[in-house]
Amino acid sequence: MSTKSIVQRDVCREPSGVQEDDWIVVEEPLEIRVEGRPMAVTMRTPGHDRELAAGFLYTEGCVDGVDDFQAIASVKDPRTQGDNIVDVRLASGTRLDPERFASAQRSLYATSSCGICGKASIDRVLQNTSPVRAIPKVSADLLRGLPEKMRAAQAAFSSTGGIHAAALFTLEGELEVLREDVGRHNAVDKVLGWRFLADQVPVDDRVLLVSGRAGFELVQKAIMAGVPAMAAVGAPSSLAVDLARSSGMQLIGFLKKDRFNRYTAL
Amino acid sequence: MSTKSIVQRDVCREPSGVQEDDWIVVEEPLEIRVEGRPMAVTMRTPGHDRELAAGFLYTEGCVDGVDDFQAIASVKDPRTQGDNIVDVRLASGTRLDPERFASAQRSLYATSSCGICGKASIDRVLQNTSPVRAIPKVSADLLRGLPEKMRAAQAAFSSTGGIHAAALFTLEGELEVLREDVGRHNAVDKVLGWRFLADQVPVDDRVLLVSGRAGFELVQKAIMAGVPAMAAVGAPSSLAVDLARSSGMQLIGFLKKDRFNRYTAL
Repeated sequence: MSTKSIVQRDVCREPSGVQEDDWIVVEEPLEIRVEGRPMAVTMRTPGHDRELAAGFLYTEGCVDGVDDFQAIASVKDPRTQGDNIVDVRLASGTRLDPERFASAQRSLYATSSCGICGKASIDRVLQNTSPVRAIPKVSADLLRGLPEKMRAAQAAFSSTGGIHAAALFTLEGELEVLREDVGRHNAVDKVLGWRFLADQVPVDDRVLLVSGRAGFELVQKAIMAGVPAMAAVGAPSSLAVDLARSSGMQLIGFLKKDRFNRYTAL
Repeated sequence: MSTKSIVQRDVCREPSGVQEDDWIVVEEPLEIRVEGRPMAVTMRTPGHDRELAAGFLYTEGCVDGVDDFQAIASVKDPRTQGDNIVDVRLASGTRLDPERFASAQRSLYATSSCGICGKASIDRVLQNTSPVRAIPKVSADLLRGLPEKMRAAQAAFSSTGGIHAAALFTLEGELEVLREDVGRHNAVDKVLGWRFLADQVPVDDRVLLVSGRAGFELVQKAIMAGVPAMAAVGAPSSLAVDLARSSGMQLIGFLKKDRFNRYTAL
């Protein structure tokens, strides 16, 4: 298991078609344990994991000060040999309110029986889905026009400058549906939910465009819905790239009018 | 309760000092229920809530198609008269795997006994914290220099273009600690966790700078740690502004070298 914060992946620069290695930010799950008991899993960039666990427990109101800790340590996962677990031992007399954890708990991506690492996270998605339908490589000409079409259709962004968007486009580049939300994952849920409620799933004939970055969770959602190609205005994470490659989804990042990167189907 | 996606708040433009109303994206909790039972709460921008609930359940693998639904409807919260609940009735014969919800469940900000709305979310934070320490208004000159100092210290961003950062600055504008992460909340947890592990909490004499937008969760974390002033390179949400005002924290948004907005302490 890597504990690096950036890694290299081969990308294809468009429109030049040059293939080369590029640095990508690492995304891996971290399991936060208290007294050996898994309390929360967060997708994070490795590094300063003890600080992350401490800050999480502190800002969620679970502990008041470092005196509440007897020890905090990174733990090797015996199944994966990874460094994706931090365990907190409490000082004697310190108790955690279990109610706190109901509110503090983030998504639990992987159960403790399958190991906490990127590969386990990917395997879990693949177990629950079929590979996405293979479609011809989405053309550079089509892709480069999408951000402008999305921006033109964004009502709230222009007035607030602070909202994410997700949109589905046909394979001819026509905008089908766009939704905005303060949360990127919500905007994606809204466009895919629109298709679901219209009894039009899987979404295996559309390109999904997201306004921000492409992290693991967003790619996971798209794959669950069978989306064959996803483009992000921002950067992808390592785990997003690896998941897209594993399930046959085309993933495009840094999508601008004049250039972008392909991370799959090079 | 508002179901609008944008609202107005009075802001102070800097450095001009002009005060005026500005449009801000709305952030409010949505409770997703199945058969009347609360399953998840997500902070979202109101609108297309049924799509959001359907897309969430679909992309988390809880349901396969709209035939699994008998009905999906927005429900009035009798306590708040708000429209922040969507309830799904399942078709006969459809069963949800409770295990799925362990993985699908996002933070539960408010228990069902206190009402699901922005005000309840704010009250919950205020109940668990004291107002932050009042400090003199952070000067425009100091604030405008912070993004450049943060960027200069960001190691991973320059190579990947895809990582968030959070940093603490002294009230004289000196960088104390910076952390990067694929997740904004993790970057904030890391800098506050660094202080926690150094036995230096509350963090009541620092300005917290975040690279992205200022949503409710990030402001909540800062307030839990006693941070008296927070600045974001991106936009704030309505609930973030309201929470900052309620707890006496200075909140700055759209922080650039030549201009920014103050949302509190006008």
